[in-house]
Amino acid sequence: MVGKEKKEHKVVIIGGGFGGLHAVQQFAGNRNVEVTLIDKRNFHLFQPLLYQVATGGLSSANIASPIRSVVKHQKNVRVLMEHVKDIDLAGKRVRLDFEDIEFDSLIVATGTKTSYFGHDEWERFAPSLKTIEDAIEIRRRILLAFEMAEIEKDPARIKQWLTFVVVGGGPTGVELAGAIAEISRSTLKRDFRSIRPEDANIMLIEGSDRILGSYVPILSQKAEEQLAGLGVKIIKKTFVTEINDKRVKIKTPEGTDESIPCRTTLWAAGIASCSLGKKLSDQIGTETDRMGRVCTNSDCSMPQHPNVFVIGDLGHFKGRDGKPLPGVAQVAIQQGRYVSKLIQRRLKNGSMPPFTYRDLGSMATIGRSRAVAQIGFIKLWGYLAWIAWLFIHLVGLVQYSNRVLVMAQWTWNYWSFSRTARLITYPCCTYKQLQEELEKNHCDDEGTKPQ
Amino acid sequence: MVGKEKKEHKVVIIGGGFGGLHAVQQFAGNRNVEVTLIDKRNFHLFQPLLYQVATGGLSSANIASPIRSVVKHQKNVRVLMEHVKDIDLAGKRVRLDFEDIEFDSLIVATGTKTSYFGHDEWERFAPSLKTIEDAIEIRRRILLAFEMAEIEKDPARIKQWLTFVVVGGGPTGVELAGAIAEISRSTLKRDFRSIRPEDANIMLIEGSDRILGSYVPILSQKAEEQLAGLGVKIIKKTFVTEINDKRVKIKTPEGTDESIPCRTTLWAAGIASCSLGKKLSDQIGTETDRMGRVCTNSDCSMPQHPNVFVIGDLGHFKGRDGKPLPGVAQVAIQQGRYVSKLIQRRLKNGSMPPFTYRDLGSMATIGRSRAVAQIGFIKLWGYLAWIAWLFIHLVGLVQYSNRVLVMAQWTWNYWSFSRTARLITYPCCTYKQLQEELEKNHCDDEGTKPQ
Repeated sequence: MVGKEKKEHKVVIIGGGFGGLHAVQQFAGNRNVEVTLIDKRNFHLFQPLLYQVATGGLSSANIASPIRSVVKHQKNVRVLMEHVKDIDLAGKRVRLDFEDIEFDSLIVATGTKTSYFGHDEWERFAPSLKTIEDAIEIRRRILLAFEMAEIEKDPARIKQWLTFVVVGGGPTGVELAGAIAEISRSTLKRDFRSIRPEDANIMLIEGSDRILGSYVPILSQKAEEQLAGLGVKIIKKTFVTEINDKRVKIKTPEGTDESIPCRTTLWAAGIASCSLGKKLSDQIGTETDRMGRVCTNSDCSMPQHPNVFVIGDLGHFKGRDGKPLPGVAQVAIQQGRYVSKLIQRRLKNGSMPPFTYRDLGSMATIGRSRAVAQIGFIKLWGYLAWIAWLFIHLVGLVQYSNRVLVMAQWTWNYWSFSRTARLITYPCCTYKQLQEELEKNHCDDEGTKPQ
Repeated sequence: MVGKEKKEHKVVIIGGGFGGLHAVQQFAGNRNVEVTLIDKRNFHLFQPLLYQVATGGLSSANIASPIRSVVKHQKNVRVLMEHVKDIDLAGKRVRLDFEDIEFDSLIVATGTKTSYFGHDEWERFAPSLKTIEDAIEIRRRILLAFEMAEIEKDPARIKQWLTFVVVGGGPTGVELAGAIAEISRSTLKRDFRSIRPEDANIMLIEGSDRILGSYVPILSQKAEEQLAGLGVKIIKKTFVTEINDKRVKIKTPEGTDESIPCRTTLWAAGIASCSLGKKLSDQIGTETDRMGRVCTNSDCSMPQHPNVFVIGDLGHFKGRDGKPLPGVAQVAIQQGRYVSKLIQRRLKNGSMPPFTYRDLGSMATIGRSRAVAQIGFIKLWGYLAWIAWLFIHLVGLVQYSNRVLVMAQWTWNYWSFSRTARLITYPCCTYKQLQEELEKNHCDDEGTKPQ
């Protein structure tokens, strides 16, 4: 083939989440394209099941696949485990810590991070669920709360340790609250001698008038009923005004301030786009949307830059109803596939119709045999929805090995009511260390009584 | 039963390892005994498989069982997740961070920790394998070394990243070296584009003239052959004189000093008893043995204290050959069972003959289809030894659920040559963060060339 040298088209993909990974896979076997996939982690995370790690049902490895494994048979793909500092749109370069990478086409799929609505000081008291490390930290806090309650003598303090507040009634909040309820009602039932874990107080706080606001109202109602059946108290139309290590302050619909004494608060309320969104928008002289997302054209490309695509949670793509597409895996997956097809068509001087999102439905699980699902016009709840949820999430796990193992783990958990991944690890383990840690984060001393 | 009040015999067990857990289980159903099990972790760790976590073959949850789960059906057992500060033999009290616990009988089974032979400064450069956190740290270092090699341009530095030194040729060292060899030769084979992981240089350094010194010589030889078959270089009669972030210095049998440029060093050389050993011996005015172990009577009790037992790795129990029993799980298990039977017999004014250790054999695995085993007069190696090892370790896993899942994971790993738990987590993840971390630990600048 001497003399027949051909310049390969350089595609750079930032982010190994659902969008990035499905984009990469579409390039399989195309020798005219050279793909570089950049992620700061070495694994793809199946985020919809992260709450299972946070609640001891699954191990981290069950829901994480090494990115290199996933693309090992794609000879045209290079994987870099790097941090992206910036993107130079004009110079067509991605700036990493150690080198610059040139691109002909760029796909940015870095997703979102947690937003505390301007109250970053709440983060240490109320962790959110974005990374494997978050999940392990949440698992540690939930399990340690029961351990602390067991050695505590004062009834008010015991109650405080056995109160769990989840802020935010979206799918993550619903799943966390449901799972904590199950842990206390079933898993830990006979584990303690001084306390009754089933007495735990689990509260779900939601600002609007219903949980699962993106679902049809009947499913919000069914989800509320199922959570109530597990003993979760749902507090709606209520906003959090303060969080510290001993309580959560709320403003009720009536406008009064109340204080909930509690030691474990989890944040599932807000998300914001990662910082690359603003960096990109600044370069083309536009604003991001309110959540920091980049507004894109109908082919997912950025204005003025037809070769730069923003997909998944980082992009603001107007759906048919004029509203931005939701931040769910399916949007990222479909956009990833679309964009990589588009790039390949263009190389052959072809084109593609604008991207259209095909809504495959959404579902949230509440616990063992409890879930809600909407698939087109079909609405399911209870056992049937749960089976559908189970099936779809198993199919979704990227690596075949994981599917089998997750199935085995779930089957076991289902029949035995157990959650075997209940390890308290990192960064402190004994009561004393925990108390010291809490002391360090301590804010005020009146947390034990409502004001 | 009013008026028929009976004082229960208070048994305190410190340590939820093999010894402690088997002791607890022997008390099942005995209403005359009140057992308190104290461990600073909330899980029992199946330590023989810890190297599998360190090398990405299994998840932490696969080899850890929540202690409360294990004893949940034993109504007479209370579990405390606490740190033991001290033991007051005369006052019959165990001092914890938050309270003191009285005992009538005490079983101390806290095991060993790693010893760097007076060179604690080596620890940060050469982690050892004792805890789940150690295993995750070792996994991180091994996987990051390949990642670093992939972005490095300088051949000498690439070689340095692809050199792995394991210090200590006991079972743990042999298992780690074998597993790293397998990772580089099989698991990561197609994962990288710039480097060939199979070129990795794996060295096992042993001070004596053979590895697996506690095994019969023929098995040491077979283990060496099998490791050599995997490409591990075994360096015997050699001592480590210095470790830093860029090299390991050794003294060869000829007495010359050599330097091995390497970025990943693992320590599997020395163990010492945990500090309770000395605290106990001091109170009875005796010395511990050289490794810090408490010398015990023929019934595993401490001199002058027939109601205090030291079992497992923390005890120095003279075997029939006059040498102390080895620090293996079987000794701890058998002593745990013996001691709790003895305590119960004594409550009925009975007695027991002295403890005798029944050697069920020992085995070490070297990799896929490679192992050595000695069971009585039978000596096995190769595939048969590996099958025996697999079977015995599965049976040994405390919780039934774990057995099934570990089997599933292993079966998958075996057929696919994969190791799916290859996650790089905690505490730093990107190259840059790693370099900064290494920089912090950096010692001198000449590490790249042998002196």
